[in-house]
This record gives sequence, C-alpha cells and structure tokens, in this order.
Amino acid sequence: MIDQIRRYVPILDWGRRYDRKAFSNDMVAAVIVTIMLIPQSLAYALLAGLPPEAGIYASIVPIILYAVFGTSRALAVGPVAVVSLLTASAIGQVAEQGTAGYAVAALTLAFLSGSFLMLMGVLRLGFLANFLSHPVIAGFITASGILIATSQLKHIFGVSAQGHTFPEMLISLVGHLGEANWITLAIGGSAVGFLFWVRKFLRPTLRRFGVPPTLADILTKAGPVVAVIATTVAVWGLGLADKGVKIVGEVPQSLPPLTLPGLSPKLLSTLLVPAILISIIGFVESVSVAQTLAAKKRQRIDPDQELIGLGAANLGAAFTGGYPVTGGFARSVVNFDAGAETPAAGAFTAVGLTIAAVALTPLVYFLPNATLAATIIVAVLSLIDFDILKRTWAYSRTDFIAVATTVLLTLGLGVEVGVASGVAVSVLLHLYKTSKPHVAEVGLVPGTQHFRNICRHKVETDPTLVTLRVDESLYFVNARFLEDLIQKRVTEGCAIRNVVLMFSAVNEVDYSALESLEAINHRLKDMGVGLHLSEVKGPVMDRLRRSKLLDDLNGEIFLSQYDAWSRLKRSPVLSVVH
Amino acid sequence: MIDQIRRYVPILDWGRRYDRKAFSNDMVAAVIVTIMLIPQSLAYALLAGLPPEAGIYASIVPIILYAVFGTSRALAVGPVAVVSLLTASAIGQVAEQGTAGYAVAALTLAFLSGSFLMLMGVLRLGFLANFLSHPVIAGFITASGILIATSQLKHIFGVSAQGHTFPEMLISLVGHLGEANWITLAIGGSAVGFLFWVRKFLRPTLRRFGVPPTLADILTKAGPVVAVIATTVAVWGLGLADKGVKIVGEVPQSLPPLTLPGLSPKLLSTLLVPAILISIIGFVESVSVAQTLAAKKRQRIDPDQELIGLGAANLGAAFTGGYPVTGGFARSVVNFDAGAETPAAGAFTAVGLTIAAVALTPLVYFLPNATLAATIIVAVLSLIDFDILKRTWAYSRTDFIAVATTVLLTLGLGVEVGVASGVAVSVLLHLYKTSKPHVAEVGLVPGTQHFRNICRHKVETDPTLVTLRVDESLYFVNARFLEDLIQKRVTEGCAIRNVVLMFSAVNEVDYSALESLEAINHRLKDMGVGLHLSEVKGPVMDRLRRSKLLDDLNGEIFLSQYDAWSRLKRSPVLSVVH
Repeated sequence: MIDQIRRYVPILDWGRRYDRKAFSNDMVAAVIVTIMLIPQSLAYALLAGLPPEAGIYASIVPIILYAVFGTSRALAVGPVAVVSLLTASAIGQVAEQGTAGYAVAALTLAFLSGSFLMLMGVLRLGFLANFLSHPVIAGFITASGILIATSQLKHIFGVSAQGHTFPEMLISLVGHLGEANWITLAIGGSAVGFLFWVRKFLRPTLRRFGVPPTLADILTKAGPVVAVIATTVAVWGLGLADKGVKIVGEVPQSLPPLTLPGLSPKLLSTLLVPAILISIIGFVESVSVAQTLAAKKRQRIDPDQELIGLGAANLGAAFTGGYPVTGGFARSVVNFDAGAETPAAGAFTAVGLTIAAVALTPLVYFLPNATLAATIIVAVLSLIDFDILKRTWAYSRTDFIAVATTVLLTLGLGVEVGVASGVAVSVLLHLYKTSKPHVAEVGLVPGTQHFRNICRHKVETDPTLVTLRVDESLYFVNARFLEDLIQKRVTEGCAIRNVVLMFSAVNEVDYSALESLEAINHRLKDMGVGLHLSEVKGPVMDRLRRSKLLDDLNGEIFLSQYDAWSRLKRSPVLSVVH
Repeated sequence: MIDQIRRYVPILDWGRRYDRKAFSNDMVAAVIVTIMLIPQSLAYALLAGLPPEAGIYASIVPIILYAVFGTSRALAVGPVAVVSLLTASAIGQVAEQGTAGYAVAALTLAFLSGSFLMLMGVLRLGFLANFLSHPVIAGFITASGILIATSQLKHIFGVSAQGHTFPEMLISLVGHLGEANWITLAIGGSAVGFLFWVRKFLRPTLRRFGVPPTLADILTKAGPVVAVIATTVAVWGLGLADKGVKIVGEVPQSLPPLTLPGLSPKLLSTLLVPAILISIIGFVESVSVAQTLAAKKRQRIDPDQELIGLGAANLGAAFTGGYPVTGGFARSVVNFDAGAETPAAGAFTAVGLTIAAVALTPLVYFLPNATLAATIIVAVLSLIDFDILKRTWAYSRTDFIAVATTVLLTLGLGVEVGVASGVAVSVLLHLYKTSKPHVAEVGLVPGTQHFRNICRHKVETDPTLVTLRVDESLYFVNARFLEDLIQKRVTEGCAIRNVVLMFSAVNEVDYSALESLEAINHRLKDMGVGLHLSEVKGPVMDRLRRSKLLDDLNGEIFLSQYDAWSRLKRSPVLSVVH
C-alpha cells in the first residue's frame, strides 16, 4: 500500500533523503533558472496569443505539482515554444486573440490536456507516444520552428499579420510590410542580432577571458535578460511607446489567480483533439529530455509516472491562469547544468517566479514586444534541423518520405494536419513493408539436418514437395499475400503433392491469417495437395489448437523440418543454385 | 510487348483457345444465370434506391467489360447487396431518392469507383485491400446484412420508413406501422415464407423425388423467379395495385442508355471517400469469391488484374445507366455450378439481360415491391454470421474486439463509420501487440555454443555482462520500449560493464530504432557501460553501415553470440533457473 502510494507520489521517496547539500545546490540552480525564465515566460505567452502574465502563472503551480508527482530530477516544466504554437493554433479556432473567451479556452485546453495525460498515466498508456516516430517528430519540430519564427516576424516589423500556415503567414506579412514601424524594426533587429551574437560568440569570448565553462554557459543563457533590460530602458528613456512601439504594458501584480476552465460541451468537443495532440507531443518532448538528463547520472525515469506528473502540472495550469505546459529542453538543461539535484529546485524556481509576479511586473511595462519576439526567434532557430532529411534519405527511403510529408504538410496545412499526416504515413509505410514478408523456398543441405534457401545454396529438393520458410509473423496485412504466393507456386508445378510451411520465424498467427491458412488448406485439398506445418512455436501452436485448422488439416504437424522432409520426400534431387 | 498487352487484356489469351464445347457449356450457364439475375437486379436497384432498370443496365455492359479484362473464369459481375446498401448510404447524402440528381450521383459513384480501381490496378496496389482484416470484413458483412434486411421491412409493410443506422430504421419503422397496408403485408409475408421454404426444404424434397443434385440446386435458385411470377399475376389478376400495393410500374423498354456521370467538383469531392470504400469492399468480396472458385479448378486469378477488370466494369456502369458493381457471391457460384468455362458465359448472360431489358420489362409492371424486398431479405440472411464473434473470442481477444467494434459501429453509426473504425481498431491493436516485443535475457548452455533464456534454462551468466535477445524487428512503435528496458536493466545491476544485443531475429531497424540505438549507446557510454551487437543479419548490417552508429559504438559487432561471450565474460557463474 505504502509502495503503491510512493509509486504515484515520488516526492515521498526522495523527500525523506533531502539534506542541506542538496538544498544549497537546488537553490543555486533555482536562482539561475528563474532569471532565465522571466523573459522566456513572457515571450511564450506572446507566442500563444495570451497576456504576458499567463506565461508566468503557467510556470509557478505546474512546476510545484510536477515536483510532487514527476520522476525526473532535473526536468523544468512550463510553457515551451512548440506547445505555445499548438495552443495558439487550437484556440484560434474558437475565439479571437485578446478576448476573455480566448484566455478561458486556453485554460480548457490545459484542463483537457491534463486530464488526458492523467488518464493515460493511470491506464499506463505511455506507449501510445511511440506512434510518433522519430522522423515524424524531427520533421514536425523543424517545421514548427519555421512557423514560430515566421509568426514572430510581425512583432519585429511592428505590423499585424495573421495566418496559421507558412504561405498564409508570409503573404499576410508581405501585404502589411507597408505599415512597418521603423523604430520597432530597429529594436527587434538589434535584439535579434545581439542574441545571435551571444549565442554564437559570447561563450568562446568569456572562456578566453578565463571564465569557467559552467559560468560562461549560464551567462550565455542570460543573454535574453540583458536584451530585455536594455530595450526596456531604451523605450522608457526615449519615450518610444508614444512613437508606435508596441510594449507589454500593464501586467497585474498578483499571485497566480484561481481560475476555472470553460466546460461547455461545444468548447470541450472542439478542443479535445488538439488537446490530445498537445498532450502527446508535449509528453514525447518531455520524456526525451528527461531520459537524456537522467542517463547522465545513471538514474531512471518512469514514463507512465511522467504522464501523471505532466497531467498534474497541466491541471494546475488550468486552475491558476496558465495554459498547456510541458518539460522544456532549454530550461531543463540549464537547471541540470546549474546543479539541480532534486525536483525541489523546481519548487524554488516557482517561489522565485512568484516573487517576480508579485513584485517585478511593473518593471516590464515598457518592455517592447519586438524584444520578446527576438528571443523566441533566436531560441527556435536551434529547433530547425533540415539535416534530418539528408540523414533519413541516406538511411531509409520510407523514413525519408515520413519526414518530408510531415515537414511539407505542417508548413503548408498547419501543425495539426502535419503531425496527423506524419503519423498516418509512417503507420501506412510500416504496414506496407510487412505486407510482403520474406518467404524463402528451402531445401536440405546435403549431409546435415539444416534447410537453406534454394536460391542461395546447393541443397536437396524434391519436385513433389515444396517447403516455404515464412520470415514474418502472419497477420491480416500479409495473410492474403501468403494465399497468393502458395496458389501461384502450386499451380506452376504440376508434380507437387505436398506443401510444408516452416514456421520457425512466425511469432503470431492472427485470426485473419488463421482463415487464410484454412483457405490455403481447403484449396490445396481441392487440388489434391497436402498441407503440412513444421517447427511451429509453442504459443502459436497453443492458439492453433483452439481453432479447427488442425482437425481439418490435409496433412501433419512436424516438430522439425527434417522430420517433415524424411516423411514426405519421394524422389529427392540435388538442385543447382539458380 | 504482346505479353504486356496480353497481361492487361486476358481475353486475348483464353479467346484463342475457345471451342465449341466451351461455347455450349457457357451458353447453358448463361441461360440459368440470366433467369436468376432478372429479379435480383430489380431487387438490388430497389435496395440502392434507384429505378429498377438501373439494376438490369448495371448487369449488361459491366459483365462484358469484365469478360474482356478480368482473370476469373467464373466470376459474375453486377449489382450486389452490400454494395447496393453502400450506394444508397453514400448517395443519400447528396440527393433525394427518386430525383434525377440521385441517379446521376449513382453514375458518379460508379465512375469514381471505376477510376479508383483502375488506378489501384495500374499502380499494382491490390495489397491495400489487405488492411481490411478478415474479422472486420466478417463483422461488416454481418452488420450490413442486418441493416439491409431491416431496410427492406418497410416494403413488406408497405410504409415509408427511413434511416441509415439500425436504431434509426427501427424507430422510423415502428412509428409508421400504423399506416401498414395489409394486402402488401400478406404478399410480402407469404413471399418471405415461400422463399425461406425453398431455401431450406426444396432441395431435399427434389432429391427425394430423384432429381439430380445440380438440377435441384438450380431449381432452388429459381425460387425468386417463381415468387415474382406468382405475385405479379396475383396483383394483375386481382387488381391489387388499386388497393395500395406498391408495384414496380413502368420500366422503359430500351438498350442500356448512354449516360454521363455528374462531374461537378462538389459532387466528386463528397463522393470520393464513399467511392474508395465501395471499391475496396467490392474488390475484397470479389477476389475472395474468384479465388475460391479458381482453386477448385487449380486455376489462378491475378488480384492486380482483377482491379483493372472491376475498374472497367464500374466505368462501364457509369456510362450506361448503372451504378457500382462487383463480383457477387451468389451469382458467381450459380455460374460456376452451371458449368461456365470462360468469361464468355458472362457475355452471353449480358445478351440474355439485354433481351430482357428490351422485350420483357412490360411483364414486371405489376410486380409488387414487397416481393423484391422478400427476395432481398431471404438472400441477405445468409450473410449474417454471429458465429464469428464466438470463433474470434475463442481464438484471440484482439480479433474479437475488432469484430465487435465493427458490428456495433456499423449498426449504430452506419456502414462508413463502421468499416473505417474496424480498420482503425485492427491496425491499432496490431501496433499495440508489436509495441512490446519479446526480449529475453540469455546465457550460455554449458558445454555448447548455444544461448538460451536465463528464466527457462540452466545457463552460464556473468554479472558484468547482460545479453538481450530481441525477438522482433525494431521500428518506431517499439524503439522506445527497448530504450526503457535497457535503462531499467542497467540501473538495476551496478556491476554491469557490458550489454550485448543479440539481433538474430531482427529483420529490420528503421530510422527511429536507429536513433534509439544511438541514444542507448550514448547513455550507456555516460554510465561507463559498453554496448555490443551480435548476429546482425546481412541486410540490417548493410543499412547500419550507412549510419554513424557503428562509428560511435562504445563496443563491437560480433559475428556470433559465442564470440561476444568469449571476449567479454569476466567471472562467469552458473545461474539457477528463477
């Protein structure tokens, strides 16, 4: 019972061993992550089309709930780029940005996503995430990065463009370029340039001045904070807000509020599919990060318990003014590198962000949206990886088709269609590959009891006896293939009296395959040909015993192929390799 | 070149060998089939909601085109029950029954279906039909039989009920029962009773009077003709049409007319998905029948060429006033039993039906719809097979779930949702089954070079060395499973220094699995554990060579597991069977 509770509430396990050293390590990590998260949270809220405080609220309660229920020691939960984009795309269908309905729909999305993750966790359905193949994920993330960067260009130019697909966004942006605000463009452009420079060159420069590597890394991650401070001061000092530069403006000074997601049936049914999609993509991203970090310390995470941790975090977001969250790559790596030892580091980050929400929000009044857009653009460019196209092309054409489909459809038709098509294409390609299994005709290697492919080896065969080795489990997609193959082989050779199917590599025979075997048996009987099986595995045999096939079989079951050969051969000849 | 043409136009092959004996056999079969087809064609047109002549037209040109392009010697192509139901369901969405738009939409459906089948045939995509598993087909046919029988009850009662799902039909029927026409009910009821009696008892009775079995079979199939003649005469003689009995009425005396399917983009896009569904279901039904009959004479059919034959037949139907057709079970069996030797029998049937269309249609003026409904009801009851639920339950629960889903959703939500869900469920269940492959930890059988499962055999193991035998191809659905499994196993045993993956049963490693292997390698490296592969198959190795895995591998590739063991063992111990 205690073990059961401890499995679902991991904090009971690591909490007992918590000590002063872990506390001080966690505190240091928390301070660093908090500083990095303030601008990032504001930026991702902007990406999701929500007011800036939503990004901060989404980082407070969810992070605490994950600390209680999650299994990763270093994962930092909160708003992330791809999920923010998915949120904007999903809610855009039911409400206008800036309306109260939009914010309520974001809560509903987090609620549905949290409930779905919880349900998957309790039912231990974590394996469902595996339907997203690696190439599909890679293609989707790359295309999302492009979509996100493109969607932020309007803030850099200070115009109001729209669109959910890449062509829509581009056309809308170009159409509005005439209205560009040049001061905004100057701020956004220099922020992008500065952040790029920080990302590429700051670390080597600091290292040359003798700064230790970890500190250099952390200072590099603080680049966005510098950009935020510099541009905020500039806008405030020069009064640029009056010259058309869009700023964050008033952000309420408050603890995360208690909120209720909208629960009307229409809203729930419209957002259900997007919520499932967000859950699965968020879960996959989060688990990959958590597994990578855990392995570095020879620790383990439990994917099914992760579902519960992320589910709790999203439910937390739904009731405290947030929106869908997941474990983010950048923030988790910073947390890990800064020395976080337990999920308590996350909880301390939450305290830091709470202080920020209550005390520091007036400071971001003059922060220009263009700066936030610049931090997003520079952050997501690291997601874009066209190399996956080259790598899959070299490795396997079917995987390449899956990536290319996902990239093109995500850009051209939007995130939901893109990822759904990617999954559909990879499943279909897999089924296609197994629909024509390898079946080898085998003969006896002279002087042994081994049977080998007659096309590759010099073996004994018998014109009255065909032995086929089936190299794949038999199930509905390839069942009929075997029917056709045997029909073809038997109508070719008039002397054939017996067919043996060698089942050494058949791990499963489903009901469709059973019916195909029955049909094969029936047809061979009509032709006066015997059907025999050899080397049937135990579990397959158990199942076949529950059917009528064995009673009706116009032949025998042989324990070994050699037994079958010894009994059925009539006039063996040594074959020539074709 | 000639061979190429002959492959696509099989008539060139069998036509050259056609002789007087084959001609006379084909003629006899054609006369018998024609007599059976006249009432059946009228009835299925009624089921599809089309005027009666559409059923006859759909049996003329299509049958000739199939004779030219098809590969089955005995298949009889024309309207069939399930496809007629699907047609009614699809066209019901775009037009009202009885309107000109309805008939045009039926032509469009046949056109789309014919084009799709042709395309599949030319691209040799016959394997797509395999996605319909046997349990899904069986469940769908059973549920369709129930839907069809229920839909015909309104003609038996002489009321006008509606609905596309079983509950809708029942509720509508019960709601209209007050308007029932008692004379219609008497005709319909006695026709059903008579046809049942014929089906069940006529054959044994005839046999007792010394009638030869084949003739007895054929006379039994002629039951509907007797019912048609008797009730038509009764309605005409007693003037029942004036007493509210609905009759077939005027059927134009004409050759099949030249018609054009509607080709508006809206109509095409609405009917595309139903047309694909009809094509695939029709193809599956047709191929099963054709294969069964071909096997009886040790002949073969070519499924890809069948697609072209059926495609041509449907295009023929689209341009000659018909609606979607396929190879029917009942008519093909009668054709075969009556001695048809070549597709010419079908062409002669077409001539017979043409004569009927031109000369005999006035004779069916007084034929009551109730009689046609009775022939449909008795015919489709043979499709209903609830036994499939029992058989799949006994054999495999996953197959049972697929059948039950298909039956319930087809009845409850209609034919299209039903069959689509059936396919989706069976694909998902298959993926689920392969998502947790069997992975055995193996050790050396003492005194041999064989490795066996440590849980089942007394074998030598080494606490520093873990060897896992993977019993399934690795692909995206199970890639992450292996990651978790290895992570778990390695974090359990602190002494572990090396992991060997034995790949003897791995037939494929897709890109997702490659990345999982790379991640496993990377994580084991972080833990200071080596990763080795043994017994990798040739094609898998070729592919792995194109990746970076082998360069980065923190270990070696061993040709045999015994080599790996000899090199890596440090302190082998004899294990006890757990």
